[in-house]
Amino acid sequence: MGEFKVIEIKKSVFENNDREADKLREELKAKKTFLLNLMSSPGSGKTTTLKQTIARIRDEYKMGVMEADIDSDVDARTIADTGVQSIQLHTGGMCHLDAGMTKQGLDSIDADDYDFIVLENVGNLVCPAEFDTGASKNAMILSVPEGDDKPLKYPLMFSICDAVIINKIDTKSVFDFDDDAVVERIKKLNPKAEIFFISAKTGEGVDAWCDWLRRQIDEWNK
Amino acid sequence: MGEFKVIEIKKSVFENNDREADKLREELKAKKTFLLNLMSSPGSGKTTTLKQTIARIRDEYKMGVMEADIDSDVDARTIADTGVQSIQLHTGGMCHLDAGMTKQGLDSIDADDYDFIVLENVGNLVCPAEFDTGASKNAMILSVPEGDDKPLKYPLMFSICDAVIINKIDTKSVFDFDDDAVVERIKKLNPKAEIFFISAKTGEGVDAWCDWLRRQIDEWNK
Repeated sequence: MGEFKVIEIKKSVFENNDREADKLREELKAKKTFLLNLMSSPGSGKTTTLKQTIARIRDEYKMGVMEADIDSDVDARTIADTGVQSIQLHTGGMCHLDAGMTKQGLDSIDADDYDFIVLENVGNLVCPAEFDTGASKNAMILSVPEGDDKPLKYPLMFSICDAVIINKIDTKSVFDFDDDAVVERIKKLNPKAEIFFISAKTGEGVDAWCDWLRRQIDEWNK
Repeated sequence: MGEFKVIEIKKSVFENNDREADKLREELKAKKTFLLNLMSSPGSGKTTTLKQTIARIRDEYKMGVMEADIDSDVDARTIADTGVQSIQLHTGGMCHLDAGMTKQGLDSIDADDYDFIVLENVGNLVCPAEFDTGASKNAMILSVPEGDDKPLKYPLMFSICDAVIINKIDTKSVFDFDDDAVVERIKKLNPKAEIFFISAKTGEGVDAWCDWLRRQIDEWNK
């Protein structure tokens, strides 16, 4: 079984999160470390999507994963079992990560050594959208069972993401989910969003997501 | 189509939410109004469960529904179409409701006239658990697609709820969901929690949930 550290994240002391986030982004850029902030509702498949992503790109980049959770080590354990460096960030009840908290995680994982780090944010479609973590790019997952109306209800999250992954397409037979409607609703909020339909369970569609991700990493680190 | 109001909720000015919540609960008790605070992740089926609940008990109680959402009127519209009094509370980006915000909603719906009011909280497993709304009872929905590990990751939410509804049991054929494991995890956090397995889509199991709910309302209002 893989090894992983557990870090208890402290509340940030910085008043201006946007400034701290920009500063962190500049540092990461200088170090050629691409940081992906991955967000979603609870249970939409962040960790399973990450496992599929890791399987495809782990040989191309030195990568690490920071798993943020209020409690439990479930996800860090799962990722550590893939052999990729994984740490668990405990937010102590906090519903999101800001730039200061993200920095604490990066300091613990020795971010200088990595080409590519994923921050799996707390499962929450509301608060994480409001705090810039300093990531190079933001991505989110919406799963088919959650419904195609979610962009109407959580518009900020869909607005700030560079990529939107629609996961669990293998379960479409048991849900009413309108692909065209969800794309239209996302594009209305965020015309530049890249949208990927995938099944993290079967692997369908994951290649296209990984191709996009590679382009972002290579562009950032060149 | 049913009529409904949209209320823009303002941030509470009260410093001590627990005190305000207790005060609100006493007022509701005196007025014989049972307030249910219904919480869950985005897309777990709060509104569909409510529709099934309304169909079974609307003739027994004078009931109203307050739909809290960051944005959109989707849910209030759905509930208004059932003919039950419905209002939409817009939280202006806030990720939860506290007692002061709940009171603003109750004042708008003329709570004195009702036996039973449902507050459909913002879709979020984190923040709503931290703020007592003043409700008579708390209930939450976990849907099968979200996974049986959620009590491990969001322990506070499962700890504070009087009832936990496991929804979307009609989709179990396409998900790995262990009923015994989820019950064990919930009971470990909250031995007194009542647990109901339902499909809000087919109606399976909803009667047992409604029986429990009737007992709570009758006990509160007697």
